[in-house]
Amino acid sequence: MATLGDIGVSALINILGAFAFLLAFALLRIQPVNDRVYFPKWYISGGRTSPRQSGNFVGKFVNLNFWTYFTFLSWMPQAMKMSETEIISHAGLDSAVFLRIYTLGLKIFGPISIVALLVLIPINVSGGTLFFLSKELVVSDIDKLSISNVHPKSIRFFVHISLEYLFTFWTCFMLFKEYDRVASMRLNFLASQRRRAEQFTVLVRNVPHVSGRSISDCVENFFKTNHPDHYLCHQAVYNANKFAKLVRKRERLQNWLDYNQLKFERHPNKRPTGKSGFLGLWGKRVDSIDFYKQQINDLDRRLAMERQKILKDPKSIMSAAFVSFDSRWGAAVCAQTQQSKNPTQWLTNWAPEPRDVYWKNLAIPFVSLSIRKLVISLSVFALVFFYMIPIAFVQSLANLEGLEKVAPFLRPLIEVKFVKSFLQGFLPGLALKIFLYILPTVLIIMSKIEGFAALSVIERKAAAKYYFFMLVNVFLGSIVTGTAFEQLHSFLHESPTEIPRTIGVSIPMKATFFMTYIMVDGWAGIASEILRLKPLVIFHLKNTFLVKTERDREKAMNPGSVDFPETLPSLQLYFLLGIVYAVVTPILLPFILIFFAFAYLVYRHQIINVYNQQYESAAAFWPHVHSRIIASLLISQLLLLGLLSTKKAANSTPLLVALPILTLTFHKYCKNRFEPAFRKYPLEEAMAKDLDERHSEPDLNLTAFLTDAYLHPIFHSFDEVELTEVRVDKHQTHVPSTSIDGKNDHIPTPSSETSSPSPPHHYAHHYEDQPPHTIQQYEVEQQPYNVFHYGADSPTNVYRF
Amino acid sequence: MATLGDIGVSALINILGAFAFLLAFALLRIQPVNDRVYFPKWYISGGRTSPRQSGNFVGKFVNLNFWTYFTFLSWMPQAMKMSETEIISHAGLDSAVFLRIYTLGLKIFGPISIVALLVLIPINVSGGTLFFLSKELVVSDIDKLSISNVHPKSIRFFVHISLEYLFTFWTCFMLFKEYDRVASMRLNFLASQRRRAEQFTVLVRNVPHVSGRSISDCVENFFKTNHPDHYLCHQAVYNANKFAKLVRKRERLQNWLDYNQLKFERHPNKRPTGKSGFLGLWGKRVDSIDFYKQQINDLDRRLAMERQKILKDPKSIMSAAFVSFDSRWGAAVCAQTQQSKNPTQWLTNWAPEPRDVYWKNLAIPFVSLSIRKLVISLSVFALVFFYMIPIAFVQSLANLEGLEKVAPFLRPLIEVKFVKSFLQGFLPGLALKIFLYILPTVLIIMSKIEGFAALSVIERKAAAKYYFFMLVNVFLGSIVTGTAFEQLHSFLHESPTEIPRTIGVSIPMKATFFMTYIMVDGWAGIASEILRLKPLVIFHLKNTFLVKTERDREKAMNPGSVDFPETLPSLQLYFLLGIVYAVVTPILLPFILIFFAFAYLVYRHQIINVYNQQYESAAAFWPHVHSRIIASLLISQLLLLGLLSTKKAANSTPLLVALPILTLTFHKYCKNRFEPAFRKYPLEEAMAKDLDERHSEPDLNLTAFLTDAYLHPIFHSFDEVELTEVRVDKHQTHVPSTSIDGKNDHIPTPSSETSSPSPPHHYAHHYEDQPPHTIQQYEVEQQPYNVFHYGADSPTNVYRF
Repeated sequence: MATLGDIGVSALINILGAFAFLLAFALLRIQPVNDRVYFPKWYISGGRTSPRQSGNFVGKFVNLNFWTYFTFLSWMPQAMKMSETEIISHAGLDSAVFLRIYTLGLKIFGPISIVALLVLIPINVSGGTLFFLSKELVVSDIDKLSISNVHPKSIRFFVHISLEYLFTFWTCFMLFKEYDRVASMRLNFLASQRRRAEQFTVLVRNVPHVSGRSISDCVENFFKTNHPDHYLCHQAVYNANKFAKLVRKRERLQNWLDYNQLKFERHPNKRPTGKSGFLGLWGKRVDSIDFYKQQINDLDRRLAMERQKILKDPKSIMSAAFVSFDSRWGAAVCAQTQQSKNPTQWLTNWAPEPRDVYWKNLAIPFVSLSIRKLVISLSVFALVFFYMIPIAFVQSLANLEGLEKVAPFLRPLIEVKFVKSFLQGFLPGLALKIFLYILPTVLIIMSKIEGFAALSVIERKAAAKYYFFMLVNVFLGSIVTGTAFEQLHSFLHESPTEIPRTIGVSIPMKATFFMTYIMVDGWAGIASEILRLKPLVIFHLKNTFLVKTERDREKAMNPGSVDFPETLPSLQLYFLLGIVYAVVTPILLPFILIFFAFAYLVYRHQIINVYNQQYESAAAFWPHVHSRIIASLLISQLLLLGLLSTKKAANSTPLLVALPILTLTFHKYCKNRFEPAFRKYPLEEAMAKDLDERHSEPDLNLTAFLTDAYLHPIFHSFDEVELTEVRVDKHQTHVPSTSIDGKNDHIPTPSSETSSPSPPHHYAHHYEDQPPHTIQQYEVEQQPYNVFHYGADSPTNVYRF
Repeated sequence: MATLGDIGVSALINILGAFAFLLAFALLRIQPVNDRVYFPKWYISGGRTSPRQSGNFVGKFVNLNFWTYFTFLSWMPQAMKMSETEIISHAGLDSAVFLRIYTLGLKIFGPISIVALLVLIPINVSGGTLFFLSKELVVSDIDKLSISNVHPKSIRFFVHISLEYLFTFWTCFMLFKEYDRVASMRLNFLASQRRRAEQFTVLVRNVPHVSGRSISDCVENFFKTNHPDHYLCHQAVYNANKFAKLVRKRERLQNWLDYNQLKFERHPNKRPTGKSGFLGLWGKRVDSIDFYKQQINDLDRRLAMERQKILKDPKSIMSAAFVSFDSRWGAAVCAQTQQSKNPTQWLTNWAPEPRDVYWKNLAIPFVSLSIRKLVISLSVFALVFFYMIPIAFVQSLANLEGLEKVAPFLRPLIEVKFVKSFLQGFLPGLALKIFLYILPTVLIIMSKIEGFAALSVIERKAAAKYYFFMLVNVFLGSIVTGTAFEQLHSFLHESPTEIPRTIGVSIPMKATFFMTYIMVDGWAGIASEILRLKPLVIFHLKNTFLVKTERDREKAMNPGSVDFPETLPSLQLYFLLGIVYAVVTPILLPFILIFFAFAYLVYRHQIINVYNQQYESAAAFWPHVHSRIIASLLISQLLLLGLLSTKKAANSTPLLVALPILTLTFHKYCKNRFEPAFRKYPLEEAMAKDLDERHSEPDLNLTAFLTDAYLHPIFHSFDEVELTEVRVDKHQTHVPSTSIDGKNDHIPTPSSETSSPSPPHHYAHHYEDQPPHTIQQYEVEQQPYNVFHYGADSPTNVYRF
């Protein structure tokens, strides 16, 4: 076991490591060539179009202003400058509330650390059981500061128990205040938002098939009957997966065409040529511009056919629809009520914002959803408890003799020295590392299969699964030795009261391990987060080898976003560690405090300068954060109960029993008190906003506003290339909803002006006639229709206070 | 252990007992003097006003038509005659669906019994382990027919497992069909109901206090803003508990006045006199009629003051209100949506029907509700697991030496022989019996304290608690010896996989006990139910000593109702027994089948002829019945798993593991599929009914219809005596809701015609001027306003198909 000295050395190493990361960051971030890696958010929000320095050629790549090198920690005060309100309007509420989790951590653990260190350390040290044993047993110095050092049956345990009460009350108090604050922030945010499509729209799933009538007809009819005063229009959902694939292919070709046209523009005397085969590596040499034009031409014809198929074939309309209402009140009512006698049909829910919709899952029927849920929960259980089995199998391959026996034909290869040492030294660990690396992705895929209709929900569910995995395999797995599967087996065969004992006893002994864990995973991990090594390398690689046009460079600039499925669970693990060890080994608390403070600074910087959220869920993840901290409290209470019961503190232990009950009651109260604000939209709010708007904009054309909002993004991306043609299509697409609706027939939609049908081959020549220098301009014009930048420009456009 | 012969004897005794009960019933029911005990429902519904025979004096009391004595089982075919539709219109949907539970039992266990007896008995008998042991061990013959008789490790267990699968699937199939049927019956019932107040009304609780404004104003304002198109009016809730007490006192005095007036009418030459003191036992002798008139006069003045206080004092208006809408759609929307930003305010829920409201609980604030829920759940837990402690304490009093030591002054009393033998022989058992007898009442009181606003919900929650008690103390308590507390202790210290083993092993051994239990509690219990011994005795006692007027006789006629808090849990216990023993000891199944068939007949008879439901919840209890049968399936699967694991059937046992998962999935599916029909009112239905009504009655005055519906019943009962005066009050009561509303100012409500204010003392002379023979007539006129008969006449009035 580690002594205090060991921990000190480890801390020094990790601090130096973190410091090195920070130094590297400080040097790299001020180089103009990295500007798009470290400040992408400002490019996207339009606050920056080129690196700060634009002097000579070298100055384009390297920072020559040496003064800036001496202020390498200047990003910290900079990060603190922005107020919370500014952050909300700059990056959205999700990011602002995400930062509040760190301040919550500081608020909870700051006072707890002070009290715990001042009160518990003297009490534990003077307990002195372990001083007598230290000669015979290897006891860590850390343990002398922990509860292990207190005599069994000691009256001192009353102090631990009363502090556990105190800490629980303090945590609950802070949680309550924070929940209250976040709930009101959410409602304020929703109230102050400009008019947005999702406020008026409800996602209807499981529309029943009536033979002889189209889905659109059914939807129209049903809502006209049952919401006669508020129904406005609806948008059918198209199954456009194949079309999306073709569009992606066309985009790729368009990129190559742009590239070649750019090349031709730069060297007008030499027409670019290339080989027509795979990756341009073989085949006939052809004129590139003509070749790609021809290809695009062909693809356009296929796209037109596919589009016709989507629009004509009734099977391509899924049994789901986005139904829009003439007021927020109408939408709130429809989203919260049951529509049909059969509760598996006409399921209504708030529509996610358009960026947030996960289109593929919109058409899953009810029965399939139940089955998917069952299958996925079984798989998650299996994944958490049995993931070691396939990994152990892979690791067994490292037994080279075994491998050679199984596959003798591999022997010559294995006998090569390099391969042999690679397999023996690297493969076993590699399998586990690869698994842990791809785990979040796997969990997201699982959540996608589960059938949720919004990306934000998928991410939250993946986060829940990841937390479960971490709780079992990192927390419990580190405390109780053995794999999760072995734990499961032994727990099933142990009495329920025995489990907290077994775990509780081991807790103080693992404090040093978790300190190291916090330093390696927390401190160094956060420092590497700010360095953005992976995006940096990838950006420069792309910039060197792949970027052909300015648009490509913008795509190569990957701002990323707060990685909720991974960050939230690890954050919650730190809360768990802090709460569990607050009473047991309080010396661990400062490590957690440093983590929270440092991470807060780093993420504040990243959110301001780097991340660009894909969607805005208005802090919908908060109830999960709250309930997992409550779960941490419960776990800590149970484990302390188990720990004390081994200390024979029979007088004091029963006092603890009331605590879990009180905590659960608090949780239930909070759930009733605050959670509806995250699940439902109160009619009072909706009505106030409606009245407000009716007052300020009496002759608003809501139908025009809602027309395109929930069109499948594929139709938007189609726009990007063939603007007028698709507009016609969009108009056609809307025929079922707008013409039957009868309310907006005579309203000129923005698209109807240019709606003249023309043969598709005409549009293939679209670019041919344009001079190359207009491409950049075209891009700027097109941006609102560009699906890939759809998420990029909206935070600043939309979240105005 | 009991042999087959023992069981046979026991069965014979119980059959004879049940037969005796039936015979007594057959003889008693045809006596005219008992007519009001055995056919009260017909008196209430108006189908019968006097006993069938009205010949000579003796014929009024004793049935002299001897032919009827020979057809003493004739009630059985009579009970079967009524169709389900007729039962629904005669007794309501609750009763009809209650009967369906018995037919469901028959449908589930009929085929299961046949299969189990035909397949399992031969397999078990030929297993023959116990035949070898029978010489040494005392083994019951029943055990030879059970799974205990099969060799460990036998391949025969595959048969048991596949039958468990088969039975589970069959049960689930029947449950699904039944849930489907009941859900559609409920929706049909709701759809075919005539216009009823609760369809348009929502109960709003936790109206926030705004200083300077009355609750009524707040409600008015809030709903006018947030439901502008549909809000109609509201009814404030008054705290009239003190007033109710005075009204009850006044009623008692009125009864005495009526009695004395009747007496005076019969003997006009002698004015009745009585003593003015306690119970008329001492004090000055006074003229009874004058005395009671004076008393009523005084009371009326106090009532008037109290009424003024209620109407004037703003504190008597509780922070709850019944808000009515102009359409079912509007009410459905309001009931299902969240109103306010603060989810603990403006809580909306469907209003229970007026008869079903539990007025006292309407004003409980949100925080108090959470605390009450916690306290009550802890108490239920304590009650279930520790109820033996106080009872054991009482039982310890039977130790007379101990008692004499504790209280030596009691010695002379205890030494009396009769007292001694009473204490020793009767007291210990008595304590437990009294406890079990009052248990349902205690549970209902607990549910009332928990704060539910409707009687039906209170009864359902009490039923849930009672089921929990029975499951732990009757089912588990009989299988595992020892008190529930000891069980809890040992279970907490056992491994979770050990628990089903411990219980599973004992199951086959307890089959004979449960057979006896079914015969005593089931067969004989049901037979005593039809005899109605308690109501019979009480009716005749009251009739002889207390009944003064015809109205009193009507009150003495206590029809009772299906006692859901007691009947549903015991019914569910029989399902549990049947499902658990179906595979283990199939010989138990016929006993359960007989119970279901016999109970079905008896309850059918009682529902048609006797019971008068207090309220109509439209089968709201069905989800509980369903989920508890599912729970029984799960319990049976777990216990079989435990039982087989002791039989070392390692090959076959794992096959069972999938079954609980499948069952749970089925349950979840059913919950999603059907439960919303019991919790929410689909907008589709509401709109259809609204449109229908708007078509058939275009100029309906809904406000007039809703005016009095949710007035506190105390105001109705006040009506009964001072009709005109209270009508004025009622009008005043409605001033806040109707005048501000502005819609129904000019509509003449039924009460407004007679609304002339006059001093209260005038009305005390109301009866004085009336000749005594009009009292009966008055009663008939008053019936719609009589709160005690309110429930009585509605089923026939309201549930018309």
